[in-house]
Amino acid sequence: MTWQSVRFSLPPWIEEVAPQGLVLPTLEERMRFVIELANRNVKAETGGPFGAAIFEAASGKLIAPGVNRVIPSNIPTAHAEVMAISIAGQMVGSFTLAGAGMPAAELVTSSEPCSMCFGAIPWSGVRRMVFGATAEDAEAIGFDEGPKPHNWIEALEERGIEVVAGFLAEEAGAALRAYGEGGYEVYNG
Amino acid sequence: MTWQSVRFSLPPWIEEVAPQGLVLPTLEERMRFVIELANRNVKAETGGPFGAAIFEAASGKLIAPGVNRVIPSNIPTAHAEVMAISIAGQMVGSFTLAGAGMPAAELVTSSEPCSMCFGAIPWSGVRRMVFGATAEDAEAIGFDEGPKPHNWIEALEERGIEVVAGFLAEEAGAALRAYGEGGYEVYNG
Repeated sequence: MTWQSVRFSLPPWIEEVAPQGLVLPTLEERMRFVIELANRNVKAETGGPFGAAIFEAASGKLIAPGVNRVIPSNIPTAHAEVMAISIAGQMVGSFTLAGAGMPAAELVTSSEPCSMCFGAIPWSGVRRMVFGATAEDAEAIGFDEGPKPHNWIEALEERGIEVVAGFLAEEAGAALRAYGEGGYEVYNG
Repeated sequence: MTWQSVRFSLPPWIEEVAPQGLVLPTLEERMRFVIELANRNVKAETGGPFGAAIFEAASGKLIAPGVNRVIPSNIPTAHAEVMAISIAGQMVGSFTLAGAGMPAAELVTSSEPCSMCFGAIPWSGVRRMVFGATAEDAEAIGFDEGPKPHNWIEALEERGIEVVAGFLAEEAGAALRAYGEGGYEVYNG
């Protein structure tokens, strides 16, 4: 074991659910896709009940998926959004999705971002962020969302990042509640 | 290129500067070490002017180093603190450094954490966070620190994480100023 590097890996099943070349034209499809990532991650016991993905906003072409991998990877930063943002950089070969000539990108996530993932969004270069379940839904089953600014949505919008809050929140919240009722491990509770 | 995984790698020179088994008993030594990581990263052209490390707080045993790798890796989340926190989890085999029976850990960073790195600190399990240069020093050369809560230090302390602000700030700030004067690339400016 050395500290030269650490690999952030999605579960082996990701290529089944998220095949290369996937295009999801509507926001409903994109949100249902990340909810399915969250549900599949729980069923496969490959991480926490959170899914996220980055798409080309206009076409719906999937740039990178992500699921929570904290416990199985022993990586505290391996939240679904950080996974998707980090993998997206690799996929497009750029440290920002807002580079000259790039199509506008959006982050869709099954649950309101925590303090870390919120803070990562401006560095990703996405132009829009859409979340499903709210922090209250996640906190209701024992997850801790961390200390965000009270005006965090405005803080993103001031930076030119549109926010869509609570989209398909009922479906997204159901995935969290199923996890809570399943008696799975909740970290940082 | 697939989205199955992404590797966060430190530069090849890291094992020279940060040999396995390194112990730095005093806080001065630990801060000078992370400033040296920042300076070396600039000189070697392996990333931005930021260094961080996680230590066992009492003994000063190095658990994991980190440097900024955003531009060379095409990973927007590869800040020095996220690197150190993520590698530390792998080194100790746990998603938290605050597990039962573990020695208290501390994060030492050459510059005030940005919004993302601030948000990651509660998930790391460190009990203390020490930074050198301030956000103003980083912003003076064009880096963007992101939207943190105005009371971010208190927010960490309320969670039981002691904060030491501006430690050896003059030396730490000099590393940033040298980078600014060197005409290197500043991202998200």
